[in-house]
Amino acid sequence: MPPATDRLLASLPTDLPAVERAARIPAGFVAAGATAGIKASGNPDFALVAAIGDPVPAAAVFTPNRFAAAPVRLSRANLQATGGSAHAAGYAKAVIATSGSANAATGPAGDADQAAIGEAIAAALGTTPQHVLHLSTGVIGTRLPVDKVSATIARVAPGGLTATDAGLDAASVSLCTTDSVKKSATVTVQSPGAGGGMVAITVTGICKGVGMIHPRMATMLSIVLTDATASPDTLRDLLRGTAAVTWDQLSVDGDTSTNDTVFVLASGAAGAASADTDPAARDALATAITAVARDLARQQARDGEGATALITCQVSGAADDVDARAIARAVIASSLVKAAVHGKDANWGRIAGAAGNAVAAEAAVLEAAGLTPTEAQARAAQPARVDPATLRIAIAGLVAYDGAKGGPTGIDKAAARIAMDAEEVLIRLDLGLGTGSGEAFGCPLTEGYVKENSEYTS
Amino acid sequence: MPPATDRLLASLPTDLPAVERAARIPAGFVAAGATAGIKASGNPDFALVAAIGDPVPAAAVFTPNRFAAAPVRLSRANLQATGGSAHAAGYAKAVIATSGSANAATGPAGDADQAAIGEAIAAALGTTPQHVLHLSTGVIGTRLPVDKVSATIARVAPGGLTATDAGLDAASVSLCTTDSVKKSATVTVQSPGAGGGMVAITVTGICKGVGMIHPRMATMLSIVLTDATASPDTLRDLLRGTAAVTWDQLSVDGDTSTNDTVFVLASGAAGAASADTDPAARDALATAITAVARDLARQQARDGEGATALITCQVSGAADDVDARAIARAVIASSLVKAAVHGKDANWGRIAGAAGNAVAAEAAVLEAAGLTPTEAQARAAQPARVDPATLRIAIAGLVAYDGAKGGPTGIDKAAARIAMDAEEVLIRLDLGLGTGSGEAFGCPLTEGYVKENSEYTS
Repeated sequence: MPPATDRLLASLPTDLPAVERAARIPAGFVAAGATAGIKASGNPDFALVAAIGDPVPAAAVFTPNRFAAAPVRLSRANLQATGGSAHAAGYAKAVIATSGSANAATGPAGDADQAAIGEAIAAALGTTPQHVLHLSTGVIGTRLPVDKVSATIARVAPGGLTATDAGLDAASVSLCTTDSVKKSATVTVQSPGAGGGMVAITVTGICKGVGMIHPRMATMLSIVLTDATASPDTLRDLLRGTAAVTWDQLSVDGDTSTNDTVFVLASGAAGAASADTDPAARDALATAITAVARDLARQQARDGEGATALITCQVSGAADDVDARAIARAVIASSLVKAAVHGKDANWGRIAGAAGNAVAAEAAVLEAAGLTPTEAQARAAQPARVDPATLRIAIAGLVAYDGAKGGPTGIDKAAARIAMDAEEVLIRLDLGLGTGSGEAFGCPLTEGYVKENSEYTS
Repeated sequence: MPPATDRLLASLPTDLPAVERAARIPAGFVAAGATAGIKASGNPDFALVAAIGDPVPAAAVFTPNRFAAAPVRLSRANLQATGGSAHAAGYAKAVIATSGSANAATGPAGDADQAAIGEAIAAALGTTPQHVLHLSTGVIGTRLPVDKVSATIARVAPGGLTATDAGLDAASVSLCTTDSVKKSATVTVQSPGAGGGMVAITVTGICKGVGMIHPRMATMLSIVLTDATASPDTLRDLLRGTAAVTWDQLSVDGDTSTNDTVFVLASGAAGAASADTDPAARDALATAITAVARDLARQQARDGEGATALITCQVSGAADDVDARAIARAVIASSLVKAAVHGKDANWGRIAGAAGNAVAAEAAVLEAAGLTPTEAQARAAQPARVDPATLRIAIAGLVAYDGAKGGPTGIDKAAARIAMDAEEVLIRLDLGLGTGSGEAFGCPLTEGYVKENSEYTS
């Protein structure tokens, strides 16, 4: 047994501030949740978040799926119209989210439905349709009931909107589909103030996500709000870099949905210095956004369809961070590893096999994570470097494989079974090749996942 | 309902000769299966195939897994030694296959075990260890019992080897692990003879494959034998091109194993003209190898762990074949599509979603399929072109989505449920973009897969 100080046996340090799993609405925003009747269950299915006053800087990451849904295409066009570029960054007054129907693969009729909803929101809030961003989630190929949504808009906007945590919490409930719990995260950090001194800025995220989740861009619906100050382009840069190390490292089932979207909106109401020009303000905002995104991704993985635990894979000692993230992703996406964790089987051979197959992310993700375009192109989809002779693997704190010592350690499978009976199963790999590190989040593959996805259309 | 002549509703023509699902040993080879006692079950676990006389031309495709097992690394080195290049093509006298232990991630001790087995085979058959090729399959991280294997070699080689179909059939049984059925395929076609006129050449393949199967190079163990005439490099070219459209288009669970290998050996005993120099002989051999490989891949998909049916996805009307194969692969690899087929749910939305995520194969596979190195590099991992407005989808012969007609057709789900209650479920996509076509093979995701892979170590 190695000494307890073995870095293989400890979680990677994250350098991130503590996260509160609650919706704390930042200054400058109002929100509401409601029941429009889209879901047959009668559960809440309508969420609206709006900026107080003029439209605020906003940025997005969208699914790369070629079957991108009507709300994705309309939001992309709106950000382009208000931001003046194709960078998914512009200005927004409101975000409308409906659940129960994805409004994906619904053709021109679906586009018209989504546009009508945007017009209704704009009329109710005294803004233009271009300043409305859209989210929708649910069954692919079914139409949105525009009449029900319009009636709900008339009821909620603007009178039902409130600048309280309860309003944002209600919005988070309305995002859910097969989610077993609502999901939110809040971080408050100090930032340089616009007028000198320091001010507190808040970043809050709400999200949904249970299936059709796989690391290719942001893979679910998330809304991140902050009272910090930043331009659309700065928000976009921060969001994309964050997604590359959080949501892009999340997989539930290897399927990337047609509706995945993350929005971030910044009200500037905290009076912080601009993240565009003040490096310390930028760092504070980046750190807070990353902490919120990472925590939401972990909540999404833990609540994966049929999931009974969170699987976190952390990799250190890689040749670089790109390889480390690729390997972590390959491990948590492996059906065999996921099934083994379900069975509390410390099956390190499947982990080694998955690590041996890891390939770097696509160029866009690598660029977002900080590589130059040339570097990103050269590394995209390249195999990650793994040497069986220097690799070490630990499962739930027990060393299972040590390449330098001949490989298999003869792990005590009974002890591992007890250690793996936990809310979070940590799989650690140290590659012994360099200083690269990274992590990824997933969940066990269970009979429940199969049952949920074979017995019901979703 | 479109007319029955709609190309969407028909299977793609394959232009391939008929395949007999039996082991028919080609002239010039002997084979045997035996029980060495590696498996606790006492089932056959030892297979040996040998050329009669001198070593014959041989080629291979190996797993790209960085955790490549000892038999993979030794076979690669042996082909390099006898072929004089790193092209996985050389000369072989025999193929030894053991099942029950993968001899993967076993470190230097595992390498020594495999080398000892090679030496024992060489001594028994009067050849050199470099002319012995190795396969092994089973649990990762366990040692091979060399004493038991050596004792079996002494018993089987050469006395137990036989030039009968029964000998090769016994070898196919010994390859199996959790396979529910043995797998073999034979094709006989006419080829120009070495001395003029036409001769019959036979290509026979035996294989195993049930889990840890995913399209990145050949993904299981297969041995293909022929009495045709070809040099090692020609065999290698034909095998690699074949794998790109057959085994690379097969997925059971998204995991690529540490031991995947396909060998092809050519005895030349049929007296055919050389495939190196006679284009018609090359075509005949290529066609026969492809027919055998395609059929073995279909048998492997159908017998995937927990599988209750074969899923075939065929794509036509793509911008090119690369896109078509990528889309077919994305559909059959989607956990959500696989679960839907298990539930006999004509969930075309999940098929559309999977198609929208398809990305081209890696450069090596694209090169093998006929692209130039420059083309392959440019296309590798690029998104496949799909236009929701021109796409059509049919499931088990029923049109579910027609982009040109507004999208969803309102498929009769009850009728589809009956049509999907079959041994093979055909999913057809026509993209309406060009003339590219391709296919891929997979299986439903069932509770049985989860049970098999969570309750037992494998």
